[in-house]
Amino acid sequence: MTVLTLTTDFGTGDHEVGVLRGVIWKIAPDVQIADLSHDITPHQILEAALLMWLVTPYFPPGTIHVAVVDPGVGTSRRGIASRIGSQYFVGPDNGLFSLILARTEENNQNIRIVHLNVPKYWLPEVSTVFHGRDIFAPVAAHIANGIPLDSLGTPISDAVRIEIPTPVQTPHGWQGQVIHIDHFGNLTTNLRTSHLEHATEVIIHIKGEKIIGLVSTFGERPAGTLVALLDSSGSLAISVVNGSAVQYLHTSVGDNFEVQVKD
Amino acid sequence: MTVLTLTTDFGTGDHEVGVLRGVIWKIAPDVQIADLSHDITPHQILEAALLMWLVTPYFPPGTIHVAVVDPGVGTSRRGIASRIGSQYFVGPDNGLFSLILARTEENNQNIRIVHLNVPKYWLPEVSTVFHGRDIFAPVAAHIANGIPLDSLGTPISDAVRIEIPTPVQTPHGWQGQVIHIDHFGNLTTNLRTSHLEHATEVIIHIKGEKIIGLVSTFGERPAGTLVALLDSSGSLAISVVNGSAVQYLHTSVGDNFEVQVKD
Amino acid sequence: MTVLTLTTDFGTGDHEVGVLRGVIWKIAPDVQIADLSHDITPHQILEAALLMWLVTPYFPPGTIHVAVVDPGVGTSRRGIASRIGSQYFVGPDNGLFSLILARTEENNQNIRIVHLNVPKYWLPEVSTVFHGRDIFAPVAAHIANGIPLDSLGTPISDAVRIEIPTPVQTPHGWQGQVIHIDHFGNLTTNLRTSHLEHATEVIIHIKGEKIIGLVSTFGERPAGTLVALLDSSGSLAISVVNGSAVQYLHTSVGDNFEVQVKD
Repeated sequence: MTVLTLTTDFGTGDHEVGVLRGVIWKIAPDVQIADLSHDITPHQILEAALLMWLVTPYFPPGTIHVAVVDPGVGTSRRGIASRIGSQYFVGPDNGLFSLILARTEENNQNIRIVHLNVPKYWLPEVSTVFHGRDIFAPVAAHIANGIPLDSLGTPISDAVRIEIPTPVQTPHGWQGQVIHIDHFGNLTTNLRTSHLEHATEVIIHIKGEKIIGLVSTFGERPAGTLVALLDSSGSLAISVVNGSAVQYLHTSVGDNFEVQVKD
Repeated sequence: MTVLTLTTDFGTGDHEVGVLRGVIWKIAPDVQIADLSHDITPHQILEAALLMWLVTPYFPPGTIHVAVVDPGVGTSRRGIASRIGSQYFVGPDNGLFSLILARTEENNQNIRIVHLNVPKYWLPEVSTVFHGRDIFAPVAAHIANGIPLDSLGTPISDAVRIEIPTPVQTPHGWQGQVIHIDHFGNLTTNLRTSHLEHATEVIIHIKGEKIIGLVSTFGERPAGTLVALLDSSGSLAISVVNGSAVQYLHTSVGDNFEVQVKD
Repeated sequence: MTVLTLTTDFGTGDHEVGVLRGVIWKIAPDVQIADLSHDITPHQILEAALLMWLVTPYFPPGTIHVAVVDPGVGTSRRGIASRIGSQYFVGPDNGLFSLILARTEENNQNIRIVHLNVPKYWLPEVSTVFHGRDIFAPVAAHIANGIPLDSLGTPISDAVRIEIPTPVQTPHGWQGQVIHIDHFGNLTTNLRTSHLEHATEVIIHIKGEKIIGLVSTFGERPAGTLVALLDSSGSLAISVVNGSAVQYLHTSVGDNFEVQVKD
């Protein structure tokens, strides 16, 4: 059974998500549709890009991912469909897939991207405000039905890229940035395992607080303690044991912090 | 594979949605179940009716839709199952399907509605507070299994109707009403493409603001601008480009506004 | 088609839920995955236990339930897989399944629980913070593929138990407790049909309010009235007709109330 996932900023109280499902099933009735998230903050492309970057490695080859966070809908921004490694990605060309692209390039895997310009595979009428319904959902369903990428559009090599801000090296270590705050109030940062792998001691300074050393699991400290750890995705995370780091620290996405590192 | 959709005001934190799925799969194990929304405002029948009216045209013939927004559960309000055009609808007889009924009548398509009064197709015990579980989910699953409507109840022709409030004609154009506010803060109104099709100039007065002309896409104006447009469903919508009209205007569902129209 | 359900406190805005789905489908591509809820209050094991206790009786035999509300992840708490009655349950050994266990014991049905200690059925790398991904999802998928419980771990008979607080008998009736507040603002209590079955008159005292008698359906009282009833799950519930009891009474989970009973 082909799996097709949906990632949007549509929320779950309106008609859009249901419409996407209907459009897909009308064209490809046997596809299995799974929500990754519809709770992306409206118009936050990087938030959706991060989520997909974390989720997609766990999906089977051949999975088709549709992402619609699309503040530029109706402008000249292109729509794209792509095969990146072993999976397919369909959505606006605004950077949504660029973290996955970068990882796939690092791994020297195949990438093919087409600019969606063959209206035959779209709904008959295309609005200027809902390309998820009119273009991306039908195109994804046609991919599920075996239509090759090259029938859907013209190959391109200049897809729009966005990036996670890079940590800045300092005399004593790194200046990092909070790049995501999760449902539990954990802070995900742009520092990765690789930035800290030779460190024998790590001290984090954030919002006037000091965190000495990393824990390897929450259970090492009592409930309520502010801790730092390498999370399940290989990012440096700042958490409160059985609590909320964002409430503890009053941080926001984009806030900087300092890491002192001793080799 | 038969598709069955769920629309409720149950939220996603309690047991009810899971219970509906279980009841359906116990009777019809191969049905594909899709959530349209469980985030309808509690008891807001018109909100659910609008959502289903927007979504259902995109679903395949034979789809079965279950809707449970049911403030009258346990009273004398009837339960109904219906075939409206090419799809099935099951739920309380409180107007949930009446916008779909009206559209289907306009299109001269077939409609058949039965009052659910054959307990053989319900759960063995029927509570007075959860007919979604006890009556509507099992009935929908039996429809998926091929049980004809006429076995489920007695045909009726007086299903309860509710309506979107009609725009009022004024000397200079229309008085419209906000009928929905979506996740992005866009205002959906009761004015449709048909009300404005001969207009050469449109000026909207809402909450002391004046919007001159319609845009055809958000990209025509800078971020933060208040705009009006015909949305992807053919309704006049009021939006802020990459922002929230509801925050900009402090409006609510039910608020009126004026449209000056020049032919 | 095998049905597999997910119950977590992960929310729906982050990557975790999508990751669980991907991991499961990579191992068991044809399984049908259904969300029970991802909106359990973070770390509230009893809330998830209650939800699963209410939902699972409605699912078909052979259903596999995965629950991940796991504040003790990375500590010495065990992971378990179990067959309880006719269904399977996989998750941390922290009491999540104990209400279902108690009910199954009362019904003298079969129970088999294993401590998950066979890494062959896990992901190759196991983190200290996301056993849902690394252990529970893959184990559940292997169960769907027919791997017997006894291959997954060592049988145990001392699974961790938690309990709904028991109502306290008083000279005039019962002291009960609010154990859940639902999406509508209804209060679920720990009093069950069985506690009140010989009562001819019931008076409830809660937060300075007095509720005389039980209604059998909301329609018996006008909108806005505070009422008590035996809900669709057999618990005493306190509600406001077409309104919110929690807003009316300003109660919280854990609050006590008095019930005067006359036989």
